[in-house]
Amino acid sequence: MYDIEAIRADFPILAREVNGKPLVYLDNGASAQKPQVVIDAVTRGYAEEYANVHRGLHYLSNLATEKYEGVRETVARFLGAMDPEEIVYTTGTTMGINLVAYGWAMPNLEAGDEIVLSVMEHHANIVPWHFLRERQGVKIKWVDVDSTGYLDPQKVVDAIGPKTKLVAVTHLSNVLGTVVDVKAICDGAREKGVPVLVDGSQAAVHMPVNVEEIGCDFYAITGHKLYGPSASGAIWIRRSRMDEMRPFLGGGDMIREVHKDEVTWNDPPMKFEAGTPGIVQQIGLGVALDYMMGLGMENIAAHEARLRDYAVSKLGGLNWLSVQGTTPDKAAIFSFTMEGAGHAHDISTILDKKGVAVRAGHHCAGPLMDHLGVTATCRASMGLYNTEGEIDALVDALELAHELFG
Amino acid sequence: MYDIEAIRADFPILAREVNGKPLVYLDNGASAQKPQVVIDAVTRGYAEEYANVHRGLHYLSNLATEKYEGVRETVARFLGAMDPEEIVYTTGTTMGINLVAYGWAMPNLEAGDEIVLSVMEHHANIVPWHFLRERQGVKIKWVDVDSTGYLDPQKVVDAIGPKTKLVAVTHLSNVLGTVVDVKAICDGAREKGVPVLVDGSQAAVHMPVNVEEIGCDFYAITGHKLYGPSASGAIWIRRSRMDEMRPFLGGGDMIREVHKDEVTWNDPPMKFEAGTPGIVQQIGLGVALDYMMGLGMENIAAHEARLRDYAVSKLGGLNWLSVQGTTPDKAAIFSFTMEGAGHAHDISTILDKKGVAVRAGHHCAGPLMDHLGVTATCRASMGLYNTEGEIDALVDALELAHELFG
Repeated sequence: MYDIEAIRADFPILAREVNGKPLVYLDNGASAQKPQVVIDAVTRGYAEEYANVHRGLHYLSNLATEKYEGVRETVARFLGAMDPEEIVYTTGTTMGINLVAYGWAMPNLEAGDEIVLSVMEHHANIVPWHFLRERQGVKIKWVDVDSTGYLDPQKVVDAIGPKTKLVAVTHLSNVLGTVVDVKAICDGAREKGVPVLVDGSQAAVHMPVNVEEIGCDFYAITGHKLYGPSASGAIWIRRSRMDEMRPFLGGGDMIREVHKDEVTWNDPPMKFEAGTPGIVQQIGLGVALDYMMGLGMENIAAHEARLRDYAVSKLGGLNWLSVQGTTPDKAAIFSFTMEGAGHAHDISTILDKKGVAVRAGHHCAGPLMDHLGVTATCRASMGLYNTEGEIDALVDALELAHELFG
Repeated sequence: MYDIEAIRADFPILAREVNGKPLVYLDNGASAQKPQVVIDAVTRGYAEEYANVHRGLHYLSNLATEKYEGVRETVARFLGAMDPEEIVYTTGTTMGINLVAYGWAMPNLEAGDEIVLSVMEHHANIVPWHFLRERQGVKIKWVDVDSTGYLDPQKVVDAIGPKTKLVAVTHLSNVLGTVVDVKAICDGAREKGVPVLVDGSQAAVHMPVNVEEIGCDFYAITGHKLYGPSASGAIWIRRSRMDEMRPFLGGGDMIREVHKDEVTWNDPPMKFEAGTPGIVQQIGLGVALDYMMGLGMENIAAHEARLRDYAVSKLGGLNWLSVQGTTPDKAAIFSFTMEGAGHAHDISTILDKKGVAVRAGHHCAGPLMDHLGVTATCRASMGLYNTEGEIDALVDALELAHELFG
């Protein structure tokens, strides 16, 4: 039983008003709100149990270290990973993908080598590869989606040529809601001996993820979208790929010994984690993932599938609204443009007056905007605490906007 | 009037016990505790005012953006910087120095170029330069400290040769407490046309800092040592140096436009900030810096100078204790070894039983440990809330340890 009212009561911000209206928070694709258990864990971390980790030998340091390191096991469980030592802590997906770009791709790829991307990648999974293109002559090969937003996994596999060294693909589009069959892509890529990085920023929020079943090499997640603290995160890296990586960030903890003329590295995962980390944030991330697993990822997915179906039927009734992304098994993420409305930002401003928070812009997906032939869209993106009533509120606000701009 | 009891009451963790004894927290060099105003700001950030920044156009996003961006001005004021746009947000000093290493040094230095470091640098200000040594043949030139831990600024300036492209030096040693005359170093380096990076991790905690007066090019600070949240931080970069930098981390926010075959960059400071940042942490950092400036950096420095003098006199009476770092104007940071004690860790374990939290190890300063001829030391490091009574507790605990090991 998915008790939506009890769940909503776990999130203090959902009780607040915005512009005199109850907050209808439909900007989860950008960042999710936090349950009280996460906020409490952060507060307790600072008020009662704070110290730096790893290098202490006093009570508080040991306590903080134990809690902080324990989260690796939680993340591994959340991602279906076999070994907590394959979990590298990051400050989010952007940092995770940059780690792979600088730590794995930069030393292993040379001019003329190729990286295969889908056209609906987020800038976090594009710009690090543009760096390699600009700096060392790597080529980016793009795979398009069809008119519904579907990405054919076979087209991705077919794009892999003899010079392809990496496939980097999202598991769930932050704009279209498309769920990508990353397992099929990994199966095909593995036959050709090419590793696959999966951007799990959005997918891990909305569905069960199992990296062993998917068969990828890198799987990046970001804590702030997972109902956890900002600047928390992790990336799962298959052990054999770790062995091919050099360190990325230099500093404390990632070294074994530092001398004037020589430096040696710590073992993974610490080899890839430099300096004082986001101690309290990562502890909060562990609590957030436990919260989600406590609800059950299958239950969250089922709830959000109901929301999606409801939204599809309601938004489908607005014949002046164009929704981008119409695959049947998509996530409850709805990007749209409105006939007559000058700009997406105008729509979001009207919606905000009614307490409805959506995002307007390019959603960090420039190539997809080019592909869609738009410069910006509005996006309503749902999370585990949203309701059908909130979709009604969105539709009411959209109708008001349509009246104003129509 | 520096009301130490009122100040201590601002820090909830200081009221707790450890191992049945009142906590005596002398591990501030590793990380500082947080005042209630910072904890409250973090809690409020998540419970009432949370959304992603920059890309929204709804109320909560605008509110979070305003608070988050406002901290740039606070950091600028804290560092005596003229322009908030010279403040780049980071997750700490390690990230700040890696930004300079990857963004400025990597594209501008070639094989045979030199970087001048002092022997008492922290690994965060060593390992990024070792990367350049290993990966592109840059040479590291080391400048020693004398037997008191004093670093002669003229020796640093004299080490600058025609191939030297950067001086990177700490403002305050995390092991010895030595305060470095970075202004004299910058004066000399500027005459030779060489930029200076100052690692302000420790100094900014203990004394007023003014980057314009110092005349450096890069000044890195870390929030968790400044009584702020973990994974908060910033680096001040002189605008003319920003113009010489390429972006480091790739992702959202740091771009202007992303297309399939082309990418253009945002203006600084955003050019150097990729992806969803530590929103709530940075807001908390601003509150922490305001808290410190509210007490007055001169007042904090004066209080800690009293603590230093008291500790020098008390520890000086223990003839079986060797203190490393004896410059007269040092900070209240005391590294020491004990005659007869097998290892620094044994001492810290005894101290912990008495509730006294100190750090034991190499303090992320391998070359300095080599220079001192030790593998590890204990370190008691004080902050704005410590008291002479806590130094007495340290001395009592040390005497117990000496009895046990003597």
